[in-house]
Amino acid sequence: MANFLLITTGGTISSIQTKEGLKPEANENIIDALKKIDDNNYDIINLFNLDSTNIQPEEWVILGKTIYDNLDKYDGILVTHGTDTMAYTTSMMSFMIQNLNIPVVFTGSQLPLSHPLTDAYSNLRYAVAMLKAKIPGIFLAFNRKIILGTRAVKVRTSSFFAFESVNLKYIGQIDAKGLIIDENLIPKTTHKPILYPNIETNVFLLKLTPNTNPNIIDILINSGIKGLVIEGYGQGGISFIRRDFSSKIKHALDLNIPVLVCSQCIYEESNYNVYEVGKKIVKTGAIEVLDMTSEAALTKLMWALGKTNNLDEIKYLFNTSIALEIKENG
Amino acid sequence: MANFLLITTGGTISSIQTKEGLKPEANENIIDALKKIDDNNYDIINLFNLDSTNIQPEEWVILGKTIYDNLDKYDGILVTHGTDTMAYTTSMMSFMIQNLNIPVVFTGSQLPLSHPLTDAYSNLRYAVAMLKAKIPGIFLAFNRKIILGTRAVKVRTSSFFAFESVNLKYIGQIDAKGLIIDENLIPKTTHKPILYPNIETNVFLLKLTPNTNPNIIDILINSGIKGLVIEGYGQGGISFIRRDFSSKIKHALDLNIPVLVCSQCIYEESNYNVYEVGKKIVKTGAIEVLDMTSEAALTKLMWALGKTNNLDEIKYLFNTSIALEIKENG
Repeated sequence: MANFLLITTGGTISSIQTKEGLKPEANENIIDALKKIDDNNYDIINLFNLDSTNIQPEEWVILGKTIYDNLDKYDGILVTHGTDTMAYTTSMMSFMIQNLNIPVVFTGSQLPLSHPLTDAYSNLRYAVAMLKAKIPGIFLAFNRKIILGTRAVKVRTSSFFAFESVNLKYIGQIDAKGLIIDENLIPKTTHKPILYPNIETNVFLLKLTPNTNPNIIDILINSGIKGLVIEGYGQGGISFIRRDFSSKIKHALDLNIPVLVCSQCIYEESNYNVYEVGKKIVKTGAIEVLDMTSEAALTKLMWALGKTNNLDEIKYLFNTSIALEIKENG
Repeated sequence: MANFLLITTGGTISSIQTKEGLKPEANENIIDALKKIDDNNYDIINLFNLDSTNIQPEEWVILGKTIYDNLDKYDGILVTHGTDTMAYTTSMMSFMIQNLNIPVVFTGSQLPLSHPLTDAYSNLRYAVAMLKAKIPGIFLAFNRKIILGTRAVKVRTSSFFAFESVNLKYIGQIDAKGLIIDENLIPKTTHKPILYPNIETNVFLLKLTPNTNPNIIDILINSGIKGLVIEGYGQGGISFIRRDFSSKIKHALDLNIPVLVCSQCIYEESNYNVYEVGKKIVKTGAIEVLDMTSEAALTKLMWALGKTNNLDEIKYLFNTSIALEIKENG
């Protein structure tokens, strides 16, 4: 019999109706639901009772330590979590805890466990199947799909098909043949697990719009940010006529503040080397994040800045796949 | 014989390879391409030679006036435009020019007109078909689809299937049966065209991440912004524990700065009345944008602030569908 750990953090799956709206207050019911699905042993840690909108870097550090401390005690860890920021959390955990030796599977639901139409039981079943598959790593199980932690994005507000695996195939899919896993996509390691509890929280994600004033970068620098992620346009471009961002980016880099550039298009990779509007940005020394999600780019930057302030080292880390967040040999 | 106007603005469709990367310098070739596709008369205005990354509010005002000034002179207007910010431009034009009497169809391409594998000829064909359909409005024709101007989003960086119609069906689809239009979706008006050339450019789009410091709102207020769009999470939520945005939003509203709240999920509507993390925001008086795209929310706010600074009037405008950007009776 396998020995699994359930870590609850709140979320819709644990929510009940209150006068103030849905609130996460029923984590305990999840263990009862699991007992109906699976005969293995589940210990439980009720870590938070939070809507995931309120899960922030401080919770990430506690969650990361809790997962890490239990890696050698269990055959797998199931984390229930609100859907709204789950992709940020699975990305962060993928950088904060490396070389996992057991599966750590996140799930949640779009309707509470107690709702007659809930998707919670199904999602718990998929998460349990992934735990039993014994594949180490950080995963998100949802709506008959298993997604790598660094590739998940919540793309739909209310459909049960809330998450997609962006720019990487699904790790696994569930149908009448059971859970079919794409073994080629599984991250492999022979090293021992490592925890990186130091993350830099003072980084900013700037989604550009055609009216954005480039002075925002000076303002952010003066406010003390330690890193910047810019969501440019399309395949890779940031304006340089009238609203000139390239000189502002250069200024940030001169002050030793790393600047990442990605695309606000959700799907497919950015490549700042195709158009003039991208090449001018690459020349500043900004770091391209290619096919990474914005969630992964932001959390990887927080992790990288927790390790080093050296721009060259950060650039090197961003050219290296830590948890398949970026295509290899990119 | 119909009399059409081609307005070129640059973009990939007009681009040629240079040492600095692809640059838009070949607008004239588009008229030659159109002559191969359609026998109707085309006049041409070469308005800009810009990568759409460099198309900004100042260009929007010029483009809006140019379109408006020609509405009574032509049977339809075709605008070629780079793909990267085309959805922002079609959204802005939908608010800036209302009660159109002829079709105004935007298109572009993912590969230059001169590229052997170009999608430019196909997209021009779809745009021409929409011009000939004589349906007034602002539309985007791309990859066998016709999208309403306020519903277009660029979701893929390099696929020919670059744009999707978000939260509204396609206006039209092209296959072997020709161009099939969904007549139910066509905006109808009997009023005369109106141009609203005054737009407020000093608005900011804030995409939240779990580490965003709420002080950014004070900083933006101090920098003089006149309006704010916040991309919260999921179905509708913004953090209130530790990083409390609700008091900051209330402060902005007290200073007569409208604050819109939407979701960073690309698909489906947000509803801030379901969860506690949303209800707290609605109580501040922030304006929900429901199923609008971020592009439409931002440009509608720029247009609304060009008309009025009165928060109640702005709230009223956001509860009213101007160009099907929001579900009616929402």
